[in-house]
Amino acid sequence: MKARIVVTLKPGVLDPQGKAIEAALKSLSIDDVSGVRQGKVFDLEIAGSDREQAEATLKAACEKLLANTVVENYTIEIA
Amino acid sequence: MKARIVVTLKPGVLDPQGKAIEAALKSLSIDDVSGVRQGKVFDLEIAGSDREQAEATLKAACEKLLANTVVENYTIEIA
Repeated sequence: MKARIVVTLKPGVLDPQGKAIEAALKSLSIDDVSGVRQGKVFDLEIAGSDREQAEATLKAACEKLLANTVVENYTIEIA
Repeated sequence: MKARIVVTLKPGVLDPQGKAIEAALKSLSIDDVSGVRQGKVFDLEIAGSDREQAEATLKAACEKLLANTVVENYTIEIA
């Protein structure tokens, strides 16, 4: 099965990278963009056909490695 | 308007980061995951209510800054 995991900063957590991107866009005369927040996306394949098992495996992958759950949220989409 | 931009490597482009994540997951005994490809996600606000104008602005942002269009694809989702 194909799956996509999206990891984003929790609301309220400062995003200096997002601020830098915003400033860079303004310097490129792209002014109507604000509140930029950058995150990570992981596209992957997961073996098996049991969706619940796949969800549990991907949750473990997020909790152990892909997301820093202190400051990041994650969503799991299984195609 | 809220928008989300997802930037991913084009198919066929080597993803060493994805390979490293795969190996790390295996070392954590998460074996059923393969073909990991990492990308970037940008959540942002775009001023105005003209969707076509917003799409054009975000396309320019991707082409100029957010994506390296030689090796990356991008998708724009306007909420």
